[in-house]
This record gives sequence, C-alpha cells and structure tokens, in this order.
Amino acid sequence: MSRPDHRQPPQMRPVELAVGVSRWAEGSCEITVGDTQVLCLASIEESVPPFRRETGLGWVPAEYDMLPRATSERRQRTGRSGKPDARALEISRLVGRSLRSVVDFAALGSRTITVDCDVLQADGGTRTASITGAYVALVEALKTLQARRLFAKLPVRDSVAAVSVGVLGNDELLDLCYAEDHRAAVDMNVVMTGRLRLVEIQGTAEERPFSREQLNRLLDLAEQGIRELTALQQTALA
Amino acid sequence: MSRPDHRQPPQMRPVELAVGVSRWAEGSCEITVGDTQVLCLASIEESVPPFRRETGLGWVPAEYDMLPRATSERRQRTGRSGKPDARALEISRLVGRSLRSVVDFAALGSRTITVDCDVLQADGGTRTASITGAYVALVEALKTLQARRLFAKLPVRDSVAAVSVGVLGNDELLDLCYAEDHRAAVDMNVVMTGRLRLVEIQGTAEERPFSREQLNRLLDLAEQGIRELTALQQTALA
Amino acid sequence: MSRPDHRQPPQMRPVELAVGVSRWAEGSCEITVGDTQVLCLASIEESVPPFRRETGLGWVPAEYDMLPRATSERRQRTGRSGKPDARALEISRLVGRSLRSVVDFAALGSRTITVDCDVLQADGGTRTASITGAYVALVEALKTLQARRLFAKLPVRDSVAAVSVGVLGNDELLDLCYAEDHRAAVDMNVVMTGRLRLVEIQGTAEERPFSREQLNRLLDLAEQGIRELTALQQTALA
Amino acid sequence: MSRPDHRQPPQMRPVELAVGVSRWAEGSCEITVGDTQVLCLASIEESVPPFRRETGLGWVPAEYDMLPRATSERRQRTGRSGKPDARALEISRLVGRSLRSVVDFAALGSRTITVDCDVLQADGGTRTASITGAYVALVEALKTLQARRLFAKLPVRDSVAAVSVGVLGNDELLDLCYAEDHRAAVDMNVVMTGRLRLVEIQGTAEERPFSREQLNRLLDLAEQGIRELTALQQTALA
Amino acid sequence: MSRPDHRQPPQMRPVELAVGVSRWAEGSCEITVGDTQVLCLASIEESVPPFRRETGLGWVPAEYDMLPRATSERRQRTGRSGKPDARALEISRLVGRSLRSVVDFAALGSRTITVDCDVLQADGGTRTASITGAYVALVEALKTLQARRLFAKLPVRDSVAAVSVGVLGNDELLDLCYAEDHRAAVDMNVVMTGRLRLVEIQGTAEERPFSREQLNRLLDLAEQGIRELTALQQTALA
Amino acid sequence: MSRPDHRQPPQMRPVELAVGVSRWAEGSCEITVGDTQVLCLASIEESVPPFRRETGLGWVPAEYDMLPRATSERRQRTGRSGKPDARALEISRLVGRSLRSVVDFAALGSRTITVDCDVLQADGGTRTASITGAYVALVEALKTLQARRLFAKLPVRDSVAAVSVGVLGNDELLDLCYAEDHRAAVDMNVVMTGRLRLVEIQGTAEERPFSREQLNRLLDLAEQGIRELTALQQTALA
Repeated sequence: MSRPDHRQPPQMRPVELAVGVSRWAEGSCEITVGDTQVLCLASIEESVPPFRRETGLGWVPAEYDMLPRATSERRQRTGRSGKPDARALEISRLVGRSLRSVVDFAALGSRTITVDCDVLQADGGTRTASITGAYVALVEALKTLQARRLFAKLPVRDSVAAVSVGVLGNDELLDLCYAEDHRAAVDMNVVMTGRLRLVEIQGTAEERPFSREQLNRLLDLAEQGIRELTALQQTALA
Repeated sequence: MSRPDHRQPPQMRPVELAVGVSRWAEGSCEITVGDTQVLCLASIEESVPPFRRETGLGWVPAEYDMLPRATSERRQRTGRSGKPDARALEISRLVGRSLRSVVDFAALGSRTITVDCDVLQADGGTRTASITGAYVALVEALKTLQARRLFAKLPVRDSVAAVSVGVLGNDELLDLCYAEDHRAAVDMNVVMTGRLRLVEIQGTAEERPFSREQLNRLLDLAEQGIRELTALQQTALA
Repeated sequence: MSRPDHRQPPQMRPVELAVGVSRWAEGSCEITVGDTQVLCLASIEESVPPFRRETGLGWVPAEYDMLPRATSERRQRTGRSGKPDARALEISRLVGRSLRSVVDFAALGSRTITVDCDVLQADGGTRTASITGAYVALVEALKTLQARRLFAKLPVRDSVAAVSVGVLGNDELLDLCYAEDHRAAVDMNVVMTGRLRLVEIQGTAEERPFSREQLNRLLDLAEQGIRELTALQQTALA
Repeated sequence: MSRPDHRQPPQMRPVELAVGVSRWAEGSCEITVGDTQVLCLASIEESVPPFRRETGLGWVPAEYDMLPRATSERRQRTGRSGKPDARALEISRLVGRSLRSVVDFAALGSRTITVDCDVLQADGGTRTASITGAYVALVEALKTLQARRLFAKLPVRDSVAAVSVGVLGNDELLDLCYAEDHRAAVDMNVVMTGRLRLVEIQGTAEERPFSREQLNRLLDLAEQGIRELTALQQTALA
Repeated sequence: MSRPDHRQPPQMRPVELAVGVSRWAEGSCEITVGDTQVLCLASIEESVPPFRRETGLGWVPAEYDMLPRATSERRQRTGRSGKPDARALEISRLVGRSLRSVVDFAALGSRTITVDCDVLQADGGTRTASITGAYVALVEALKTLQARRLFAKLPVRDSVAAVSVGVLGNDELLDLCYAEDHRAAVDMNVVMTGRLRLVEIQGTAEERPFSREQLNRLLDLAEQGIRELTALQQTALA
Repeated sequence: MSRPDHRQPPQMRPVELAVGVSRWAEGSCEITVGDTQVLCLASIEESVPPFRRETGLGWVPAEYDMLPRATSERRQRTGRSGKPDARALEISRLVGRSLRSVVDFAALGSRTITVDCDVLQADGGTRTASITGAYVALVEALKTLQARRLFAKLPVRDSVAAVSVGVLGNDELLDLCYAEDHRAAVDMNVVMTGRLRLVEIQGTAEERPFSREQLNRLLDLAEQGIRELTALQQTALA
C-alpha cells in the first residue's frame, strides 16, 4: 500500500522552520510539515499566574487553535458558538506540558511566556508540529531575555519535539498526513527530548487494539523522526 | 519509600464493583477503588447522532464530571462559571473512545448508549476507575437489550479496563492514590482489553522525561493491574 | 385512589440520614427518602463573600444539582449547554435561605459554609430532601469547628427541615413521589423549624386554584411530616 | 411605626393599568404601583413549543427582566455578563405559571402567547405587578383573536392578580415598597384568582420564622389587595 | 413617491424630549421620534475603569438594547441565548463615542457616567434617537454634580445629536421610519455637534453604491435635521 | 510632522496581494499592507441560510478575527473568555456588507461563499485590508465555479476595495499605520467600488469634531488610494 505522497513508511514529510517571522512577538517560528503550517508566537509577560506567585518560578502556557478554513471543509469559528472547543483545549494543555518538561523555571524567574500555536493550514500532525515549532519560538523569546542579560545560560534543560506514528493496514508509518491519520487503526503522538527521553506518549487504538510489540516498533519509528526534527531545530536556532 | 496506605509498589487498592445500583438507568455500576468512588450510569436512546444516521451503526459516548466536593478542597461547580472545564471534556472523550474500542456497532444497531461517570469522591485514578466501571454499566445496559431479544450475543468483542502507573522517586508504582499522583515524576494511564491488548496509553513526564526501559516496566505493572480488574469485571457481570 | 407505593395519604416514605459519608467534606449527610437520594456535603472556608466583609458575620450558601441520569429519562448535563439551569439555581437559593434562617451568623464568625446538594437519584421531593439533609451536613461541619473550640455552643437557633404536600384528585397527600407530584393539582413545599415555625412556604396550583381551607389542611399534614423529620435529624446528629 | 409614604398597614399604593400602549404588541399594559412601573407586552405566535405539538393545546410563557437602572443603584445589564440571572429566570417562571393557571388551552388552540414583563422602574413588588399587568396584556391579546372570530368566548376561566404582604417589626403590611421589603422579617407574595382562590403562595422568613396564625392574618390582607386589583383589571379591560 | 406618514422628503417626524422621568437615575430623558421611543438613563459612579485610573480623567460609556417586542415581530431576549448581540454592542459603542466627543473629561474628574439607552418601541432611527436623548440625560446628570458644586461650568464643549438620512428610489429623505429604512438603497447616520461639526458619519449602500454628489446632498439634509434637534435639546435642558 | 515610515501624507504603504495561497480554500488571498498581514480564505457551500431559502439568491458573509499576538501586546484569545468580541463582530459585518454590495446574487445562485479574514499581523488598517483582500479571494472562488461552467460571466457588478484616511495634527493622511491611527483626531474608513462609487463611509472624530470641508478633502485622498488598490486587484486576478 503506497502513501498518498509516495513516501516510504519510515519517511517524514519535508519540514521547514522559519524564525523571526513576526514584527511583534518576542519569539516566533512558522513550521511547515508537508501541507501543515502552524504559526507559533511566543509572548513574554513580566508576571505569573496566581498559583505561581511568591514562588520565584516562571510559567509557560500554550494556546492552540485552527483557522476555520485550515481544513478541507470549513469548521465553525471557535468562540462564535457558545460551545467550548474540547479538542483545542486538550491540545493546548498538551503543548504547554511538553514545553514545560524542558524549562528550568527557577532560572526563568517570575515571568510568563505564552506560546500561541495557530494552525494556518492543516494536513494531519498539527499538534506535533505545534510542539516542535513552539519549542523554537520559546527559545527565540528566551534569547531576547538573555540578550538583556537576565540570565547567562538559556533556562532550558533539553530541547523537545514531537511526531506522529501509526498503523494503517499492515504498515507502520512515520508522520501521518490527514488522509492516513483519518483511516489509521492506531494513532500515536510521541513527544521526546533531544536526548530521546520520553515526555509524552499518547497512543489510541481507533478501531483495533494493539500489542506491546507493535508499540515498541512504533516508538522506534518515532525516535527516528525526533532525531531529524531535533537536528532541524538546532539549525533553525543557530 | 513507603506508600501512604502501606501497599507494596505493585499492589492495587481494594476494588469493588456494585451493579444494579440505580432505579432508573438501564445499566449501572458504582466502582470503588480505595477512597475513589465513581457512579457509572448507562442510558439507552433509540436514535443516533447526525454523523451516524443512515449507517445502521450505533454510538457510545461518555460524560465525566466531578461533584464540587469530591476533592480535598472544594472546586467551583461545572456549569456555574461560563468557562468550559477542559479537563472534564478531555476525560469524557477518553472514556468514550475506550468503550467504543470494544463495541460491535453494527450488532448494536441504530441506538446510542450514553455512559455518565460522576465522581462522588476522588482520591486519584478517577479517569481509570471511570473506564473500568463504565464498561460494566455498558454491559448491564446491553443485557437489557439482549433480554428484549434485540441480539443473541452481546455486541462487545472484548472487555476493557484501565489503571494508572507512575514513577515516584525511584519507585515504579501501580494504581496511584492522589497523594502519590500529585508528586509523581511520571504519570501514565493505560487502557487495555481483557485480552491484554492496548487501547490507549497516555504517559506524561510531569517533571523528568523517562526512558524506553522505564516505559516497558510500567507497562508490565499495568498489565498486572488490568488482569485483576478484568477478573473483577467478570465476577460483577456474572 | 391508592398511592403507587400503597402508603396512606398522611404517610411519609422511609427516610434515612447517613452522616460521615465523605472522606473530604467537613460535614456530610446522604439522605434517602424512598427512591430519592441526595448527597449533602458541607465545606468550610475561612473567608466570606464581598457583601459580608467587615461585618464579622458568616455566610451559608447552598448549591443544588442533579446527575444527568438521576431521573427516569436522561437530562442534558448542566454546564455542557450554554443555557443556565433556572430550576437548579432557584432551588439552590431556596436551600440556602432555609439554612440561613436558623444560623446565628455573629456566633459563626467570618467564615463561609457551602452546602452542596447533589441528587444521585430522584423520585420527587428532591428539594425538600436537600434541605433536610443539608441541615444535618451543616451541623456536622459546625461540630468540627466546635471541636476546635471556635465556639462553645453550636451557632444554630433551631433545626430546619422540609417536606412536600399536595392535592391529587380528592386526596391531600404528604410527601409526594414523582408519579404523584407529576399529576398533582396543587403542589406545596413547606420548610419549618424544629419548633414548627414556618421558614418558607411555596404552594403552586399547577392546574386548579385552591381554597384557604385546603391550604390549612395541607399545612397540618406538613407539620406532621416535619415532626417526624426533626426527630430523625436529632437521632442522626446525636 | 409609620410607612415611608404614610400609608396605613393594610393600604395599597395607587395602582394604574394603562392598556393599548404599544404600536406593535397584540396586547399591552403598563402597570404602575406607586413608583414601580412594568411594561407588559403580549405577542401572539401561530405555533407551539415542541412539548405541546400534536396536542391541540396552546402555551403561555412569560419573560421578566429589569432595565439596568430600574433600581436605586445601577445593576449590570443582563446578557452582557456570561452569568445567568437566576432571579429573573425564577420570576419569569412564576409569572408564566400564574397566567397559565387561568387559561383554557384547548380553547386557545395551537398558538403561543408570550408575555414580556420589563420593569422600567422598581420600588418593590415588581413580580406581583408583573403578574397583575401581564394578565391584562394577555386578555388584550386574546381579544384580538376573538375579534378575528377564532373563538366566541375568551379562553380564560378566571382573572389572576398578585400582591405582596409582609411583617415589618410588629406590623403586618400590604403591598410593601422597596424600603419596607428590604427590612421585612417575613415577605410573602400571593397570587390569587378573581374568585379569591389561591394560585401561588411564596412566603419567606428572611430572618425570623413565623407562625401559622401570622400566615393566616397575612393571607387576609392579601385577599383584600387582590379584591382591589381585580376590580381595577375589570375596569381596564372593559 | 409619498412617505408612509405623508411627510415631505426633508421633513422630520415629531420629536419630544421628556426630562426627569426616572425616580432613581441621576439624569433621564425619554425621547420620542414618531413611533420610536427610547428611555435614556444616566448613572453616576465615583470611580473609573482600569484604563482611566491614575489619569484624573472621567469616562462616559453607553449601553443600548431593545425590549424583545419593541419591534413589529418579537425578537429573542438578549442574554437568554448564549449568542452575543453584535448589533446592540455596535450601537452601544457608537453612542458612547458620540457622547465622549463633546465631554471635557479633565473637568468631569475621576468619575464614570454610564448612559443606558433602552428602546421601548422601535420604528426606525433608534440609534440616532438614542444619541440625541442620551446627550440630554448626560447633561441632566452633570447638572446634579454642578448643583453639588463639583464644577462651576458643565464639562461639555458642545452639544451632540444624530439623525438618519437615506436614498429611497429617487428621493433623498430625512429621518427614515422603519418601512423606509428597510427598503432604502443608501442609509446614513450622521452625528453632529450643535455647531454643526461632524462627529460620526456612517453611510452604507445597502444595494447600490452612491456618488460623492449624493453624499453631499444627504449631508445637507442631515445638517437641517441636526439644527432642529439641537434647538429641541436646548429647550428641554433649559 | 513626518510619518513613522517617512511616507508623504498622501502616500500608501507597499501593498501585495498573493493569490492561491491555500491548499483547501476555493479562493484565497494573503494581503500585505506595510506590516499588516491578513489571510483571506473563501469557502463555497452549496446551500444558503434560512432567510435566503426559496429565493434563488446566494449569500456572502464574512468573518474577521485576529490572532492573539497579531498586535504589539498580546490580547486574550477570542472564544476563551465568555465575552463576545464586539469589535470583531462589527468588522465581520462591515466586510460582509462591502462584498455583498458588488455581488449579483441571482447570478450566483443558491450558494453561500463565506470569506474568513484572519489578521496574522496588525499595524493599522486591518479592516480595510480585509475588504480589499476578501474581494480578491471571493473572485478566486467565483472563478472555480465559472470553471465548472455554473455561469458564463463572473457574478460581480464591480470590484470593491477599502482604505483608511485620517487627520493627525494638521495633516490629512492616507493609509494610517497603527502609530498614526492611535493618535488621529479623525479616523475614516472608506469602501469604494472600482468605479469610485461609495459603498460605505465610516468617519469618527475620536477627539475633535471635523468640518464638511475636511470630509471632502479626506474623501479625495481616499479615492486616490482606492484607484491604486483597484489596479493591484486587477493585476492579482489577471
């Protein structure tokens, strides 16, 4: 079974990370993964939310959303209906947790860096692209603080990136596009640090439960993708 | 490091599954896991949501919520503030997906079974207890349809249950209570079928990324818990 | 005309008041009236709302809600739709007012005790059961403050309980179950203190206006019910 | 203790009922009770809500609201905050129930008459004034249907009006203004038909529970007020 | 083509400005323009919103809304649906901006005057009537501050009023009623000061774009209307 | 007084119109005006809203929003707070009206084309840029229908574009950037067709009312800007 864009099963789509794309945001990165495009903008605020007050620790939340026509069919605009967008809130929490797993909050000090991930165009993998791009935007913002000599060393302990893997028919695939994701029997998002330690693993059998052996083969694939993404992040931030 | 309730690391809390606890619901199960108590009520409706119409297939959604004083500190009641409860929506989606992974929707036919999971008291593991109890409530509801001869065989392909595992200090623990969950370096929820195939795995490094080896040891622990829960489900449904 | 559960017109359903049912709440009471079950949990907070500040007086609010499948047909979960649940808010206000009518707020001091009444199962009379159970939960919470020697005498001037009465056909009935309430020509909720003084009377002619004579006979019935409930409250709190 | 406007305890404020005050509404009545002013507009719709469909019966709902500066201090405008206005919803339900107690829905036929009661100026007794005025607006709207020969006789079985009574110090008062209502120990709203049968009684001990004897004296006072209001309604509708 | 009420194209409807119509509001004006009636109530508050703090400057916001049956067909009540009323918010902003264009905020000092414009009956031109009436209510409120000697001279630099003009068929009309407005090819609202300087111009080609020459003729018509309204405002405030 | 980017008063910023920028949308245009960037995506739907049904006429609505960090300071994300974004709704209505003024709805037929205008980066003039870009996206979408031979001639009667003009100090300026707009005494948005007829004019004296003569000079400036934008639209669509 061949992939819609003729990739090999363990092959990622072309990835680009463009930094410095915003006039206003302190850190910015537009990430392109095939036809998926996410604009990641990091905003610095010299205060922290109530639960962090008096601790001396900073905070890094994220917000994720999609433009209404990012997808092949137009969806209702978030915030025009009264209903909460459960999927967007769930992904916002995931992106925030992933970034926070590598930040040294004592070194960051009592400030908040919010990373907005807005999907301009979606073709599968928007949450993993958001994490990979958000890390770059976050570091760009941290560099502006470093330039103001607020800390000598960037307050991150490792890099973080994410990729999807899945099972479609008998194939185990890396970096699913929407047409694949949509029909996958197993869909897994893996968030790892640059040193290939696990930050988050979210695997779902959409239709057919899977075995421990399959899980391990999928994680091998994911590791390979994270290695490529980490190298691209390093180049973009150099 | 000893556990607050003096359990061994690979030991679950006492679990009880009481069925037939509701006068009105077609299926019901109150699950108790240590001090965690969840009331799972399954409601049958002879119609399906719009996206299932004309397909002949049924649907199984779930809704999860907590009483305001289920927790050690009172939380604001959902639905009194204007803000959506992202956590409750995320868990509702997880419980629904887990149940649906074992249902034969063609055999169920064009009807919806909604399972409400309301946490009466919380001490960690409310989402995994909800899945384990919701499966029992769902089957109880399916039995009432079977009794009306709407199908010969229950339209489920396997059972499903869930348990948490985690890393606290140097210990790898099964079935974390709140005091443990709160301080865990790694927190993982594992949903598996009775045949020990994976339905969902959600692992989060709250603080310290983890290795592939640790992941495998945690999954071994989880398998052991799922085996126990599956046996209890069979007894409750017998 | 006989009652669905073969009671005499002036006969109440079996009532149980279980105290100490919560691990976390400072005061708790699960009240059972026939098939109606309400979990009443009282939470102490060492602060008061803005309108009570600087007065030295405490405050006692209540919140009432129902689980979605507490009723014979599943209702939409409060807080998932954008619409406010007018009925639940109205009853929350009634329960709060009833409790406040017997509290000595100067003796309570500058603290808030919130009583959550969550209906686990409904078969008519959920608001009156909530008041009767909430009083017990409130006193249980007050006792924990008394045990900390914050006051010598419990800061309540009397007890408070509630019962429904109504007219169905030619019968005047005490403590209507749902099947009766639903068809009643007159439906009245009566809140009284242990000394049989009126705190609140809410009578509604659903279909046929009623006379002053009928009102008086209904209040006689209610007094009898309040006497029984008061005795049960005293036993539960002893 | 004298009343702020020097009335005798059993004396009502001046009441005016102006009909035909709207260019658009099918029935209209502006009721003035002292400084309280409510605009009641009845709108006819040739359809019924879902729960009345296929029954041949009509429906009469009401909606109550206040202008933000109807009161001595400006309140936030309903619908600008996200929070529901529990008080307005509760009164809307009361006004609707009161009107429905005298309507013959089979004779009305499959149509809805919505009565909007908007308080232009408030000085106590806005809910009772709303009921008294809403009945007049409703009948005005019914007359336009009668003029179109949709029924021979107006589909109402009796008239309906409402008044407040209360206890302030040692006085039992009829028709409390805001300054009285605010300080009353007992506050009661009584809805009665023109034939002096009870439709709704809502009595609340704000501060001090009351006796059965007091209740009876208050109802005597209310009856006297309803007699006066009924006469004014008849004159306005003549 | 004759106008529905037989006016000449450049003729306004009868306008009345009644002041002192509220018991509670510090300033009040009920404006009637033909069948359009708006109640304008000004409320003084001795504080300012956050963005004005520490500036010594006052603030003047406005809020506009319509009763549900102000119009020929009943509209859903604002605040009962979850959806925002975009039109009411847009007009609220317009009325506020118009008033603020003539206020001397330094002379007003650190206080807020909110003007509520509630449309009791609508027949076109509700937003322009709101501006004209709101100015009168605002000045009435300012006079109460002047009477308390908080300033010698009223802190307004000019008066402000508003009128609609439009194109219907080949006619250029002043002060459109609803039947005209509804069918107009061009609809323009003009806000001007008493000295005939422009404060706001909002012209919309509903159907057919218009020329610069037409714009100028319409502004001539509007000036004439503003002159009349300004004279009426002066009389009402005298 | 020189402009921040050293332009002459009647000089526009560099404008770019990129078409075909979306994989999914039927029509797309990313418009850049200086540092203002708006992504305009047109979506075709083969149905019309209820008020257009049975008329044979199409419909063209627009929705406008801003990314949270499009501006120099981060704003709260629309749809996360409960409050409606009045400004975004007002601009959405303006963009929709402007597009509809040039569409031939009978020729379009019974379909809806929704144009989403999402501001990726804002530096003043986002609403006028949205109109200019939305027209291009709309025509691109219409061309795909033309290519399917659904009509011979594009169902538009003229083009439409928009520009801002304003008064800052003694200067009358074309195309204000944010730093200018923010301090302008008069701010005017002008929407015109390619044949230089007026579609919409919205002029606001933020601080100092203005004269008829100034209005005319500002409109002359606007005409010059519209001429330039119309030429760029023609080139982009060629």
